[in-house]
Amino acid sequence: MAIEINGEALKAASSLQLKKWCEEIRAEICETVAVCGGHLSSNLGAVELTVALHKTFDFPNDKIVFDVGHQCYTHKLLSGRADRFHTLRREGGLSGFPKRTESEYDCYDTGHAGTALSAALGIAKARDLKGETFSVVALIGDGSFNNGLIYEALNSLKILHTSVLILLNDNGMSISPTVGGVHEVLDEIKTEGSFCRNDIALFEQFGLQYMGVYDGNDVEDMCDALKIAKEKLKSGSVLLHVSTQKGRGHPFCESAPDRTHGVSPKQEDDRVEYASVLGGELTALAEGDRRIVAVTAAMTDSLGLRGFFERFPERAFDVGICEEHASVLCAAMATEGMKPYYAIYSTFLQRAFDELIHDVCGQNLPVTFCIDRSGITGADGETHQGVFDLSYLSLIPNLTVAIPKDEDEFRGMLRMSKDYNAPLAIRYPRAGKKGKGCVLPIEIGKFELIHSSISDIAIIAAGEIPLAAAENLLRRAQKEGFDFTIVNARFLKPLDEALLLSLPQKYVVTIEDNVAIGGLGDAIDRFYLNRGKVIRNFAYRDEFIPHGEAGALAERFGVEKEEIFRYLKECYARG
Amino acid sequence: MAIEINGEALKAASSLQLKKWCEEIRAEICETVAVCGGHLSSNLGAVELTVALHKTFDFPNDKIVFDVGHQCYTHKLLSGRADRFHTLRREGGLSGFPKRTESEYDCYDTGHAGTALSAALGIAKARDLKGETFSVVALIGDGSFNNGLIYEALNSLKILHTSVLILLNDNGMSISPTVGGVHEVLDEIKTEGSFCRNDIALFEQFGLQYMGVYDGNDVEDMCDALKIAKEKLKSGSVLLHVSTQKGRGHPFCESAPDRTHGVSPKQEDDRVEYASVLGGELTALAEGDRRIVAVTAAMTDSLGLRGFFERFPERAFDVGICEEHASVLCAAMATEGMKPYYAIYSTFLQRAFDELIHDVCGQNLPVTFCIDRSGITGADGETHQGVFDLSYLSLIPNLTVAIPKDEDEFRGMLRMSKDYNAPLAIRYPRAGKKGKGCVLPIEIGKFELIHSSISDIAIIAAGEIPLAAAENLLRRAQKEGFDFTIVNARFLKPLDEALLLSLPQKYVVTIEDNVAIGGLGDAIDRFYLNRGKVIRNFAYRDEFIPHGEAGALAERFGVEKEEIFRYLKECYARG
Repeated sequence: MAIEINGEALKAASSLQLKKWCEEIRAEICETVAVCGGHLSSNLGAVELTVALHKTFDFPNDKIVFDVGHQCYTHKLLSGRADRFHTLRREGGLSGFPKRTESEYDCYDTGHAGTALSAALGIAKARDLKGETFSVVALIGDGSFNNGLIYEALNSLKILHTSVLILLNDNGMSISPTVGGVHEVLDEIKTEGSFCRNDIALFEQFGLQYMGVYDGNDVEDMCDALKIAKEKLKSGSVLLHVSTQKGRGHPFCESAPDRTHGVSPKQEDDRVEYASVLGGELTALAEGDRRIVAVTAAMTDSLGLRGFFERFPERAFDVGICEEHASVLCAAMATEGMKPYYAIYSTFLQRAFDELIHDVCGQNLPVTFCIDRSGITGADGETHQGVFDLSYLSLIPNLTVAIPKDEDEFRGMLRMSKDYNAPLAIRYPRAGKKGKGCVLPIEIGKFELIHSSISDIAIIAAGEIPLAAAENLLRRAQKEGFDFTIVNARFLKPLDEALLLSLPQKYVVTIEDNVAIGGLGDAIDRFYLNRGKVIRNFAYRDEFIPHGEAGALAERFGVEKEEIFRYLKECYARG
Repeated sequence: MAIEINGEALKAASSLQLKKWCEEIRAEICETVAVCGGHLSSNLGAVELTVALHKTFDFPNDKIVFDVGHQCYTHKLLSGRADRFHTLRREGGLSGFPKRTESEYDCYDTGHAGTALSAALGIAKARDLKGETFSVVALIGDGSFNNGLIYEALNSLKILHTSVLILLNDNGMSISPTVGGVHEVLDEIKTEGSFCRNDIALFEQFGLQYMGVYDGNDVEDMCDALKIAKEKLKSGSVLLHVSTQKGRGHPFCESAPDRTHGVSPKQEDDRVEYASVLGGELTALAEGDRRIVAVTAAMTDSLGLRGFFERFPERAFDVGICEEHASVLCAAMATEGMKPYYAIYSTFLQRAFDELIHDVCGQNLPVTFCIDRSGITGADGETHQGVFDLSYLSLIPNLTVAIPKDEDEFRGMLRMSKDYNAPLAIRYPRAGKKGKGCVLPIEIGKFELIHSSISDIAIIAAGEIPLAAAENLLRRAQKEGFDFTIVNARFLKPLDEALLLSLPQKYVVTIEDNVAIGGLGDAIDRFYLNRGKVIRNFAYRDEFIPHGEAGALAERFGVEKEEIFRYLKECYARG
């Protein structure tokens, strides 16, 4: 984009100039997201309020924390990164989220919901202790306002005796429309106009100075409101409630904000979204089984559950961005004989780690976790890579951990799950190759021998991407005159001990799309301990994996196909 | 106790009889806790309201979920378990928490704070779907009302369209006095009398029918209130706010409820509480370093921080039972140059697993986690055994994981931590042997050779209890004419690769007080992969560990000293 608007230019600008810039920024965001993918609707809704923030405050001396962080594009454009904006979400380019390592204007990294107020309070408290006086702003969407972390932070406002500005960007949407009691309060305030005492009491009781509802898409209004808010900050924390339109200025986004929350740059025809498979299978299973309920934390569409929600509204629960509550709800329904399926992204399930242990597995309850976006997800970066799940799941007693190798196997696992009476986690990537429609019965803890060879080398791999890599390597090897066995480790827990014991090969190679520590490789190492195997594990190194193209990242962070092939050849030569 | 009060007897009883029974129950609890240890004050405060619940509702047809669950003693006495109450918290005896496997009167297992309302809602929703009509009660202390999970559940009341009774047992205390905005609201309601519209709006906005403040220690009052509440349940969820006195009826408990929350049966003179070591060291460090702040989630005393809080009130933060918020607060303060120490129990840190990854380690911030009650803690059972931490910590990039072998080493690690500029976790048990006062400098990632032997056997162990076991085994071995090397694996991450590479021994035995999956043994296995070692790992099996005596449980669940010794002898014989 041609614009490179700096703080000084903004501060001197007229309202007319600001409005013009907002339109330019909006056009730039639409253009870039069309090419690079990314979060569209939420950024379009937040243009004016971000411009007004930059006009009113002095970043980076003042600090802004973006909740989730997906709505920070305008901020990036206004803080010296416009010239690199076309590299958004590309390897080595700008992150789609705030990154301290990228700019001094980004003071706190985010990616998951609900952290911004806690972070702002911590920054403000440190400021007070150091005797400094800058302002701290937390920009929070109404979806995050359902999250428990926000409440914990609100609760501690009176303990911490400091001041922050909460800018509540209320567009009525999480990724799905926002739901729940707090949302209804916000909605009532918006409908009735501001300053209905009973409603805003919710916020004043936490010690906040509430500032009524402003039009967040009117840049002049926003500048005025922020000026007042900045003044009020001198006497304590302020909640500035702003109403915006998600997808503002883009006809399709305005009409379908839930489908344009995240936009992918391209689609391929031979691919299938695992989410749509989940939706179809679960709806079919539920037709014949009234125990089945589906639970999601504000991601009905992205997890493929729209159809289920429409077909069985009484058995479908979107509880908002409340990953922990959703887990306990599932556990409790299971105690009463229901069969809950909880669909969630891999990294977001980290939020319910304790509930997985304490509520679901501690009571050995038949809750099925459908864990989407596992492995390296790519362009969203560190906070969204699902590379820890095999490790944090396998350490939990009573939990079966399944890893489908393709669409058909995923369907098989879901059908199997219906009558499985204990905790089950099925983890899968966003998309894979279309299946052949051949769905075979799956038995808990049984691996599959995909290719059997009399050579002394075996690859044990789990999941679609590692197994596809193994099969590619096999074709290459066969061309070079050697061969190896390929085992599909469908279950990380329990392992197929009989099959592992029967494998005659001396050289065992494991491949997985997870960090090395605590994953499949470790489980295989442990099983073969002192059993005379020569093992090599390919998994991701002990590092956070940034944004980029998934395949390239996998290579760079430890699953390097050339190195695997080199090693296989070496094993073959050693014989 | 002589009483075996059943539901029918209760229902027919006069007020006078109920009061008499309450006193008998109170005496029984005091007597049993004096012998078995356990939660005293909170149970003494909840006697009358529990008796009234059993008089009003028909358990086990109606359901009650206890938040945390530590206050369930009266419930156990009234539900056919009085004759076994003297076995409380003993191996094979009654659990100190609700246990579905123990009685049909216990419908949901708890142990950690904040789950009860989500659980009650799940049970109620399942009831509705099944077309049943029983009542569901969640008994929740005011401490838990700070927790984010409660808020997530409150927020979903309007989504779930069901009815539960929340009995809010407000005694003004968590383990420490309750703090924060919500507590102030509750306090205001109590002080001003009930039905102050502005205050109770907080609850009504979530869709609750609020019933003003009742005296929870007056059994007659409680019966009347519950009768009304039961009626109101027909038209939706009810919040019955009850004021009780923690430690009621026990002079010392009444005056010091924070010190009598959990009571241990005995103390030994040569033992030291790690918490008191933490408190002393941290206060001393903070004298010379203004960056140091201490954070706790409602456990100032049990974590040894009282002295710090008194000496540096402006740098000490108790944010209530908000483990997640506390973590983010630490991360944020660290971004501004502060040096936060977050003290927490091992199992409670599971609640902040995502924040550990996303906020602290993802940004590589110098937050120090002081993780108390690691390993098998014993009498509190499944939900309190700190046996997963080595696994869930070691999988996180950027995190250094330290395991002190004794008091002196713990002091050394704390002193070292002051200038360590990255995330650090120090995990330790509740108590250990007193140190010798010889505090040596600790270097990150350096192990210690405790005993060097020319034999072909080495034990690598981490932490006080495993190392004490190793040293005991060494004395026994020496009597039988053989010897082995002992290595103190002070750091699970990073490993001391130089020392491990230099170890000449063929036979390597690891001992740890953690589950096998993902712990020290796995790390050593991975390091020595294909290096010709014969390794055996002693760690806990992949099971939840119930309540009992810590040493006996360790033996039973995988760290069996006789078996280790037998194996060592076998290695010696194989030579």
